[in-house]
Amino acid sequence: VRLTGGDRNTPVPARFEVVPQIDTPALVVDLDQLQRNIDSMADATRAAGIALRPHAKTHKSSDIARLQLAAGAVGLTVATLGEAEIFAKAGFDDLFVAYPVWPSRSAVARLHALSERVRIRVGVDSDAGLSKLADVGVAVLIELDCGQHRSGIPPHDVVRLGRACERAGLEVSGVFTHAGHSYAGPEAVARAARDEVEAVAAAVCALERAGLEVTVASAGSTPTALLSATGPVNESRPGTYVFNDRQQLALGVCELDRVAAYVAATVVSNNVDGRFVIDAGSKALAGDHPPLLEGFGSLPGWDDAVVTALSEHHGTVREPASGGPRVGDTVAVVPNHICTVVNLFDRFVVVGGGELAGTWPVTARGR
Amino acid sequence: VRLTGGDRNTPVPARFEVVPQIDTPALVVDLDQLQRNIDSMADATRAAGIALRPHAKTHKSSDIARLQLAAGAVGLTVATLGEAEIFAKAGFDDLFVAYPVWPSRSAVARLHALSERVRIRVGVDSDAGLSKLADVGVAVLIELDCGQHRSGIPPHDVVRLGRACERAGLEVSGVFTHAGHSYAGPEAVARAARDEVEAVAAAVCALERAGLEVTVASAGSTPTALLSATGPVNESRPGTYVFNDRQQLALGVCELDRVAAYVAATVVSNNVDGRFVIDAGSKALAGDHPPLLEGFGSLPGWDDAVVTALSEHHGTVREPASGGPRVGDTVAVVPNHICTVVNLFDRFVVVGGGELAGTWPVTARGR
Repeated sequence: VRLTGGDRNTPVPARFEVVPQIDTPALVVDLDQLQRNIDSMADATRAAGIALRPHAKTHKSSDIARLQLAAGAVGLTVATLGEAEIFAKAGFDDLFVAYPVWPSRSAVARLHALSERVRIRVGVDSDAGLSKLADVGVAVLIELDCGQHRSGIPPHDVVRLGRACERAGLEVSGVFTHAGHSYAGPEAVARAARDEVEAVAAAVCALERAGLEVTVASAGSTPTALLSATGPVNESRPGTYVFNDRQQLALGVCELDRVAAYVAATVVSNNVDGRFVIDAGSKALAGDHPPLLEGFGSLPGWDDAVVTALSEHHGTVREPASGGPRVGDTVAVVPNHICTVVNLFDRFVVVGGGELAGTWPVTARGR
Repeated sequence: VRLTGGDRNTPVPARFEVVPQIDTPALVVDLDQLQRNIDSMADATRAAGIALRPHAKTHKSSDIARLQLAAGAVGLTVATLGEAEIFAKAGFDDLFVAYPVWPSRSAVARLHALSERVRIRVGVDSDAGLSKLADVGVAVLIELDCGQHRSGIPPHDVVRLGRACERAGLEVSGVFTHAGHSYAGPEAVARAARDEVEAVAAAVCALERAGLEVTVASAGSTPTALLSATGPVNESRPGTYVFNDRQQLALGVCELDRVAAYVAATVVSNNVDGRFVIDAGSKALAGDHPPLLEGFGSLPGWDDAVVTALSEHHGTVREPASGGPRVGDTVAVVPNHICTVVNLFDRFVVVGGGELAGTWPVTARGR
């Protein structure tokens, strides 16, 4: 057997020293860095004078959502009715489903049940189904397409949809947008943030001219949150900032010392020159592969050690020229996209001060 | 709003007509086709005179595993100790962990507990940790690298590792290999199957010459199972065949009428020319993206409708030139890789004879 193991090539923050008694693969969150990330975004949005409504699809955790509200968040953003149900049950009473929810018979019944317990609003981006939403009595936010060209309407179309909502008897709270095109690369972030502000400004201006009131003007993802906290924007919805990930590192949004979560893995095989195999594959690291990034994850401290291929339970890692870890060693892997990784695990292993502090359930996993 | 909805472009098997009362996104399995797939592989391996030990990582379902054993499977293959524990608890008493399990303190304790209840064997591919496995008393199979160059040892090295097992007091049941390189494309499948047979034959011959007994000579994935059921190979471990998926279609392993599972989704947005958006994103379709395939899924019956981009909760689909479905319509999506999709859902929605027949839990999800 080839055991090329050596020492780490470069020093890393102590939290990437995997606590050895963890069963791998595991999703580890560093409590101290998590709290710093939560506080830092709360402080920055407060300083900008806008509301923070963090997106809970990143963590799906009522424990982490509680920390966010304690730091000053006004409520939660969620992506699905399933997430809304889980967070409503956990006591969160102000939820925005930032998604064009289709009012199927089942969705209408679920929205109705939710609206009796909590304040719930949903997104709309077409006049199909408006009357069914009106029957439930929820308020809506109109989704604007600011450049990702996925969902949402062009800002110039907002009055038409606003009037359609009015005719259907639907209360419009305002508008929201998501600059998913910021993920194209570091050079795209500032432009995408401006796109958010411009789309929101155009829509708010048009609605107000038409005599339609706008209470909420919502934008902001982790890359753009602080850049788009300006003009008429009065709410931000970042999600990933609580943990950060390899994509945020590549976008220049943060440095490694802001990464608060990783996947702990064990080296299980090392028979092929130039590579070794860890027990974290696509069922632990997720298959997200933005063009911006080589491979599926990186190993802090092991220079050039990138997860170059994923099978379901095997991650193939490029071995550093100066030596990699040994078979049986545990390593920390920073995944490309933490949101889809969290959705693979039933629990977080929580570490504080370098010690195991317990586990938290991924409360809304799979919802 | 643009409603370009039209009729399906081409007819498809009736099971791809989504039962309308399903909450989407949902993982749907067609019971009739599932049973046909299970029977067909069982019949084929029986006819070839080899044992079938299907890989349960595909379905992670004790319900489906029971159908496989009822059709003649000799036991189950699993990928992790977590899966082994779930299937042992569900009453399956002959399990092979086809993975180089690292004998950490926790893994040793878990293996020990398993070995007291069921017959359990694991893979090895290095002499690191052999003595700890020997302490547990489990038997092992030596993993051979037949060309994927991931885990496993070259066949010419098998006697050395066999002797090391012997010295450590470990019982070697035989050898196993996995031709993951068959997934490169349809032209790679037959060659990869030959690689399996050649690697197994070389290893079995070398071990027997050295006086080491070989009971199990195991190969076979869904693409190669029937092609490698020859020579000294006496056991096959296919997994995906129960459902099939878009990757198997692209490899030429099956036709659409053998696909027994899909993701049911709802069209939620259609504001951008040439595309529409469904409520199945990377948290429902998984991010697997083999170079062989364009995009992340296809919609049977809607010509050219490929899921070209995934966000977490949005799938962006190319709209057929002749018209796509309407906002609010439900569609069936055949995902690239069903194994990682199953691992995202807590339950299968089971359909039989075009009617909802209930749900099955994904018993070992996340293990």
